[in-house]
Amino acid sequence: MAPTTQIPRNQWYVAAYGSEIGADLKARTICGEPIVFYRASSGDVVALADRCVHRRFPLSKSRRVGDTIVCGYHGFSYDAAGACVAVPGQTRIPRTARVKSYPVAEQDSFVWVWIGDDEPADATTIPRAPWLAAEGWTTVRGMEPLAARHSLLVDNLLDLSHETYLHGGYIGTPEVAETPIATEADEGNGVVRVSRHMDDAECPPFYAKSTGITGQITRWQDIEYFSPCLYLLHSRIAPVGVLPPASGPDDQAFHVEVVYALTPETETSTHDFWMVARDFALGDEEVSTFLRDNNRTVVLQDVEALNLLEEILRTDGDAYQELSINIDTGGLAARRMIKSQNDTSPAATA
Amino acid sequence: MAPTTQIPRNQWYVAAYGSEIGADLKARTICGEPIVFYRASSGDVVALADRCVHRRFPLSKSRRVGDTIVCGYHGFSYDAAGACVAVPGQTRIPRTARVKSYPVAEQDSFVWVWIGDDEPADATTIPRAPWLAAEGWTTVRGMEPLAARHSLLVDNLLDLSHETYLHGGYIGTPEVAETPIATEADEGNGVVRVSRHMDDAECPPFYAKSTGITGQITRWQDIEYFSPCLYLLHSRIAPVGVLPPASGPDDQAFHVEVVYALTPETETSTHDFWMVARDFALGDEEVSTFLRDNNRTVVLQDVEALNLLEEILRTDGDAYQELSINIDTGGLAARRMIKSQNDTSPAATA
Amino acid sequence: MAPTTQIPRNQWYVAAYGSEIGADLKARTICGEPIVFYRASSGDVVALADRCVHRRFPLSKSRRVGDTIVCGYHGFSYDAAGACVAVPGQTRIPRTARVKSYPVAEQDSFVWVWIGDDEPADATTIPRAPWLAAEGWTTVRGMEPLAARHSLLVDNLLDLSHETYLHGGYIGTPEVAETPIATEADEGNGVVRVSRHMDDAECPPFYAKSTGITGQITRWQDIEYFSPCLYLLHSRIAPVGVLPPASGPDDQAFHVEVVYALTPETETSTHDFWMVARDFALGDEEVSTFLRDNNRTVVLQDVEALNLLEEILRTDGDAYQELSINIDTGGLAARRMIKSQNDTSPAATA
Repeated sequence: MAPTTQIPRNQWYVAAYGSEIGADLKARTICGEPIVFYRASSGDVVALADRCVHRRFPLSKSRRVGDTIVCGYHGFSYDAAGACVAVPGQTRIPRTARVKSYPVAEQDSFVWVWIGDDEPADATTIPRAPWLAAEGWTTVRGMEPLAARHSLLVDNLLDLSHETYLHGGYIGTPEVAETPIATEADEGNGVVRVSRHMDDAECPPFYAKSTGITGQITRWQDIEYFSPCLYLLHSRIAPVGVLPPASGPDDQAFHVEVVYALTPETETSTHDFWMVARDFALGDEEVSTFLRDNNRTVVLQDVEALNLLEEILRTDGDAYQELSINIDTGGLAARRMIKSQNDTSPAATA
Repeated sequence: MAPTTQIPRNQWYVAAYGSEIGADLKARTICGEPIVFYRASSGDVVALADRCVHRRFPLSKSRRVGDTIVCGYHGFSYDAAGACVAVPGQTRIPRTARVKSYPVAEQDSFVWVWIGDDEPADATTIPRAPWLAAEGWTTVRGMEPLAARHSLLVDNLLDLSHETYLHGGYIGTPEVAETPIATEADEGNGVVRVSRHMDDAECPPFYAKSTGITGQITRWQDIEYFSPCLYLLHSRIAPVGVLPPASGPDDQAFHVEVVYALTPETETSTHDFWMVARDFALGDEEVSTFLRDNNRTVVLQDVEALNLLEEILRTDGDAYQELSINIDTGGLAARRMIKSQNDTSPAATA
Repeated sequence: MAPTTQIPRNQWYVAAYGSEIGADLKARTICGEPIVFYRASSGDVVALADRCVHRRFPLSKSRRVGDTIVCGYHGFSYDAAGACVAVPGQTRIPRTARVKSYPVAEQDSFVWVWIGDDEPADATTIPRAPWLAAEGWTTVRGMEPLAARHSLLVDNLLDLSHETYLHGGYIGTPEVAETPIATEADEGNGVVRVSRHMDDAECPPFYAKSTGITGQITRWQDIEYFSPCLYLLHSRIAPVGVLPPASGPDDQAFHVEVVYALTPETETSTHDFWMVARDFALGDEEVSTFLRDNNRTVVLQDVEALNLLEEILRTDGDAYQELSINIDTGGLAARRMIKSQNDTSPAATA
């Protein structure tokens, strides 16, 4: 069974970093739906269907006049709610002239957009990643376009044993692949948890460099995957034997929160947002540069491998047998969760 | 309803400017039919199917020996009527060895070719554009390959309100989009006429520059679209209040004949021939350069927009709703005319 | 009827020159099957399916450790027989973890691979080309990727009349196209033979240069096509009137063995291996360079023409009529033989 191309709808997805959306019109396709984004004079982010109702010209290739978009082909004009407010050559505006407006929420440095029917869009259900915009943390980040389906990225992130092979020399060490994992699928909340606790592990080069730890470490990797959109890797690094205290802050350890927002662009491509937040060496530009460069290198290694797998799916077809083992427990749990989210999702209405 | 990809057959189309066809073999695909063109020693233009009957090698990649084409693969040789006159390794020439020869007519600087069954090919029905090869006129011209279907270009040309938005700063002014149009569909002759008469309009920069008019103008745009192949825009510019005299030449006005030949290359690409003829500043190279550069810029703006729409049709599919208003009356009339020409057209026989 | 895209299975095909396969992992697709090749420490060539059983990552993008391939994504490891010998995170190896191993034979400088069911893989049935690795012969060679189906190359090679037109100035002379051929289809052995004996022919420039013959020649071209994989052109050149002796070596003549291995890569692309062996001017580097450059030029002319025909098949579709004449007798015999090999071939199991 090949990784699915199906994308759950009636979901919140990260459309952009808040800092990406300003006065200019920005096009981004989410779940196959072309959307134009801009920040209105109120400061709120506006998200409209990126197709003029007249002849489908992309509004993102148009001009903004105040909070109105004037279509670049024939001048149909839309307000921030998507209502058409002017057409050329006549004063009467057709009653049905309106483009879809998408529910939007800004939180934890992200612009989230609701893909699906309007009714259940409840922003309080959006998963949190508070470190990304909190005091006491420094974050580096990026976004890489991935020419591979969302489910291949889910597979990749939920099984970190690939770190040893694909990212050897960067973040992988032999212990990662060798250490067994504990997996929990929380169907009610739509969360998959995968834990790998290494009590006596080699310290990967870049953690050694940025924390100053010498020698072996206790290394915990606790994944929380909020299907289908947000992935958190809580990484705890401490000298061997240093465990979290019974109470009070865990301040003998170093914490790194690796966050991925996995947003389907189309059925076979994905926006791969990545962030690394840390609670040490705050504001140290050298450490930030090092982490940014290293993590980007790791992400690009994944991108290269997953693009290759997508290309193979295209060439070979998807009628083949996979062979799964223990390391795949998390990934398979995530696939089941996505499938069940798909089953309760109405067909795309684009 | 998306713009159709269907192409009427049993029609004359412009294949080339006469000056493009000389001694060399020239390939051009018209309505999906690959054709090789050359000018025979008689001076007549020859148009043959561009596929050797033996193994379909393109004759355009072959060698011309006198008025004979010798296939570049195995040497099958064809005369100007498409009859095979030599084959390799034997003297007997198979009776059926013949490539299709297309009816051709040269007129008004164009090479016209008849796409369809031979019988009704009547060159007297070809629409005229006499200014292009007449005394008292100077013409600039070009041809741009368009990666969009013929019907998108028809839509574009029959509604000039887009001049204001897509070509603002070049030929568009606010009055164009604001002025109502009069539309007439002459089904019997297969002509759509769209008129927009602006009595007190701003003078677009390049008309101001080339005619020397200062201040407001009376600007008439009278479109005649000879479906599906030829588009004439009779443009009359004069100072405000100057109307054509009751009799005699209209010599207080400046006339520009903008001509487009719209020739389908395939179902989703088009040869976009454009010309601008004028009856003033004859032979003034500076004015010619200015008009050529300006018009080419305008055409390339259209090409960019229409290529984008074709790409959107490819990505989004063509199952969507358009919303049409008054400005679309001419375009919709043209679509109906093309559809009725399609309905009376036999299926392509390629 | 267009040239078929069907590829016979249960056949030996040339996968590579032996010298191409060394310690490094080398990917090559044969008949649509992705295969990874390497030379084991024993010296034997190993050929395995190029897809990890776990998530289909290409083994050719992996690392070799001794004679084991360690998958570059998650570390699944395979021995030279294709058996999985290690997986990450657990010691138990799933019983079904194994990639397909392909039968291989090395002979006459080639690595042959059997595409099909294992059972009938009998290396004694592989056709021979002993000159390529024999004393008394010097060989030049190359391989060009062809973006055209196997059957187009078969057509091309079995009718040498195209030499006159496509390769005029290189190996073609008027006599080639003019001289009748004798064709024999040996269905039992799967061989098509086409002979063209020119008793008084012009000497092509490069033969004149490399043999030193001046004046007219007797030129024999005896083709043996071992369908579907190997093509031998026995070329004999001698001064006019010099025939082979009744007994003893034919040492008044010059012999050139032109060999092609025609290996389908996919249904519409082909590995075009070419060699030219000679029994004169042995070791003369200037003659070798001349022959290599000339033959490569000729092959690239064929590649350009066949790629064009494949493109035409893609654009025009394959529902068209060909017109065949006497020169096509060999090619048509080869097509029938390939069709009958296809009919007895099980469907591809990839």
